[in-house]
Amino acid sequence: MNYRMITSTIGKLLMIEALLMTLPLFVAFYYDEGLSVAGVYAVVMALLIAAGTVLTFSKPEHRRIYAKEGFVIVALSWILVAFFGALPFYFSGEVQRFTDAFFETVSGLTTTGASILTDIEALPKSLLFWRSFTHWIGGMGVIVFVLAILPQKDTRSMHIMRAEVPGPIVGKLLSKTTATARILYLLYTAFTLIEAFILYLGKVPLFDSITLAFSTAGTGGFAIKNASVAAYDNLYVEIVLSLFMIIFGINFNLFYLILVRQVKRVLKSEELWVYLSIIAVSTVSIAFNILPLVQSFGSALRQAGFTVSSIISTTGFVTADFNTWPTFSKCIIVSLMFVGSMAGSTGGGLKIARIIILFKSGFREIRRAIHPGTVKCIKLDGAVIDKATVSTVNSYFILYMVIVAVSAILVSFNNLDFASTVASVITCINNVGPGLNAVGPTSNFSALSSFSKIVLSADMLIGRLEIFPMIILFSPTSWKKNS
Amino acid sequence: MNYRMITSTIGKLLMIEALLMTLPLFVAFYYDEGLSVAGVYAVVMALLIAAGTVLTFSKPEHRRIYAKEGFVIVALSWILVAFFGALPFYFSGEVQRFTDAFFETVSGLTTTGASILTDIEALPKSLLFWRSFTHWIGGMGVIVFVLAILPQKDTRSMHIMRAEVPGPIVGKLLSKTTATARILYLLYTAFTLIEAFILYLGKVPLFDSITLAFSTAGTGGFAIKNASVAAYDNLYVEIVLSLFMIIFGINFNLFYLILVRQVKRVLKSEELWVYLSIIAVSTVSIAFNILPLVQSFGSALRQAGFTVSSIISTTGFVTADFNTWPTFSKCIIVSLMFVGSMAGSTGGGLKIARIIILFKSGFREIRRAIHPGTVKCIKLDGAVIDKATVSTVNSYFILYMVIVAVSAILVSFNNLDFASTVASVITCINNVGPGLNAVGPTSNFSALSSFSKIVLSADMLIGRLEIFPMIILFSPTSWKKNS
Repeated sequence: MNYRMITSTIGKLLMIEALLMTLPLFVAFYYDEGLSVAGVYAVVMALLIAAGTVLTFSKPEHRRIYAKEGFVIVALSWILVAFFGALPFYFSGEVQRFTDAFFETVSGLTTTGASILTDIEALPKSLLFWRSFTHWIGGMGVIVFVLAILPQKDTRSMHIMRAEVPGPIVGKLLSKTTATARILYLLYTAFTLIEAFILYLGKVPLFDSITLAFSTAGTGGFAIKNASVAAYDNLYVEIVLSLFMIIFGINFNLFYLILVRQVKRVLKSEELWVYLSIIAVSTVSIAFNILPLVQSFGSALRQAGFTVSSIISTTGFVTADFNTWPTFSKCIIVSLMFVGSMAGSTGGGLKIARIIILFKSGFREIRRAIHPGTVKCIKLDGAVIDKATVSTVNSYFILYMVIVAVSAILVSFNNLDFASTVASVITCINNVGPGLNAVGPTSNFSALSSFSKIVLSADMLIGRLEIFPMIILFSPTSWKKNS
Repeated sequence: MNYRMITSTIGKLLMIEALLMTLPLFVAFYYDEGLSVAGVYAVVMALLIAAGTVLTFSKPEHRRIYAKEGFVIVALSWILVAFFGALPFYFSGEVQRFTDAFFETVSGLTTTGASILTDIEALPKSLLFWRSFTHWIGGMGVIVFVLAILPQKDTRSMHIMRAEVPGPIVGKLLSKTTATARILYLLYTAFTLIEAFILYLGKVPLFDSITLAFSTAGTGGFAIKNASVAAYDNLYVEIVLSLFMIIFGINFNLFYLILVRQVKRVLKSEELWVYLSIIAVSTVSIAFNILPLVQSFGSALRQAGFTVSSIISTTGFVTADFNTWPTFSKCIIVSLMFVGSMAGSTGGGLKIARIIILFKSGFREIRRAIHPGTVKCIKLDGAVIDKATVSTVNSYFILYMVIVAVSAILVSFNNLDFASTVASVITCINNVGPGLNAVGPTSNFSALSSFSKIVLSADMLIGRLEIFPMIILFSPTSWKKNS
């Protein structure tokens, strides 16, 4: 283990978090929230700078790291960034217990959007800003963010990238690390600004436009209203948000391809077509299913379309309480939580690319049962997926389901009903936000025990970092000497 | 496709079903149920013999069959045996709708034990006998049964065996097909008789002893009382049944090894130790969890022990309404439904051997993430599991979960609550019997729509036949000419 490399990387990261906190500090001044609020950010920034200085104090002897260090850096930095990010909620007294503040911040950074707040609107604006801003920070990944600002030409970038970027395959575009990270970061910022501007054009207040854009960009789901997006009751807002939720669920490589005028390659993306088809089919199915509950088919389509975009992109904005919908719609929604968005997007879930590979490897097995001896390759977008990737995707799915089962058993100590228990884990590991029943769209996670909140925080991190970093961080074999 | 081989095999099978129906006919005479009841069996037997004669009429030109034909024979014969097996329920007027009768018979033959009957005790004894007897027939597999009686030295046996015998690996013992089938069949019969005798010694009426033994042997779960095993309220009965449920959940190869005095190999079976450990840990965990609900720890242990044995063996006998237990216990129970019993037993579920391989392949993936480039083999009982088997087990799990999700969406049209919907699919595909809430231990499946019953019947068959035969039967590519 190259410990110094680990500590110095994390140290730099905490410095950046201090820098990011100037924004809510600025908001606190802008809205005249007084020194008691502004002071909180100042204290946390001082702590971050102090911790960052200590961690970066001893320079690494060499910059070589292996896959293991990459995973450890990613896992530890997410936990520490969440730890310090939780302090403003806790120090301000707005959140009484630290586990609650930690849960809220993990939920923000992992772009889940599950909340323990019972009265969101009671928070000072600067905290609401910080809360939504954690989505934006987490969206593209803390590390990609760092790579974009701190260019470094060394091998470590790739290992961190592999551990960090969502999806089963690190695309060719992504192999240029630093330059790539800059492009992704620029696209991400541009889309966020465009969304905020379009919302603002629709007479949404500036503060709301910006925070909503942050939440959409990260596919997070925190809103600054207790009733989430339903509070606006505005078709324009819902259409803009739906479109941008769908956009932020798309693989960012495809936008890059459009930039370099390779539209044909974009249109050939199997993953994109599957993603859009699932959205279309789910929306229409749910619309017909909820038709008896609403006034018109237009209204059904509006609610269904927004909810489907929100769930499949794993954003979690709410305009309708889908907990009151028929079980068929609920089953579709829970399935969409697992499916999630496209690989290489800011969304969560298993990712469409994995789902496609899983289906293809399942069907190959059926074909193999009929015609033993024939071996067929699995292709995606016409290219052969190598065996190791298929096997990794399969194992990923297995580990995923095992973690869901184990987490559900741990969360069940709360004695919420069975559906709530299972849904709380599903919505957290897939980074969606709302679940069913006791953790449904009109409820929140405040009633859960601290133990459950820690389990679900771990699930959010496991889902966001795609399992391996968190498991490797806590696996004893990683820490054996000379291993 | 060797169509004549398919039809003639199925024809012979229907003849055997006619023969098996002499037993309920005998029971009808013994209990003086009158000609109206006995006549039903006579008519069904006549139909079976007629169908059998037609199907066996044109002799196959050659006896060669391939894997595909093996799967088709198995899938079709289970469906047809269930179709004819449902007729006594339907013709007697005891079950009004044919889909209900079919569901009940599929549930019997697949050893699930899910019932649509609201008053079991109202049935004539001969029908109760037939109902429990379907468990016994299905337990060891209709085809293994046939192999045991109709010895044939040809290649087809192996293909049928592969499609029929539960578990990921066809053991060495099992490769001797006909001789093996006879040994398994003898062991199965011996254990059933011993169990019936021990129950009878405990002053359980003879009819009850026999039917309970049938249900235990097949790990089915049909009882002849409305309150299931709770009706006896007898510790002796519960202990005997628990032990035999655990025994019938053990790989029958191990009993064969004991017979040939290779006890050491039995003790080295990883699968056995995992199976017994899961039973012990689950029992103790649930006992502590339900302690506040019952009078004493002894009583908690009794209820937990019986329920765990019943669920993990996928029998489904009930002495306590686990639907009233805390969510933690329910989560354990639902997990046990997926785990199921050992490969090569009469039980259902994913099977312990698969669970072990799934876990090992998951952990290997984590190790591969830490140390890229190292490849480690997966071992079971010290022997290396070849890559193809590991890949098949992984794909099996994927297909399994896809079928669970799709079935849940189809069953959700019933608009039962979310937990009931999902649990109905889980309990059926794993061949357990009772589910949660609306399909919980004190309820039944009568309220479901015919469409749901057909979906769940398919799930029971898919679970019992381990996915491939049913999918291959209904896959268009299987029926293409010259494929």
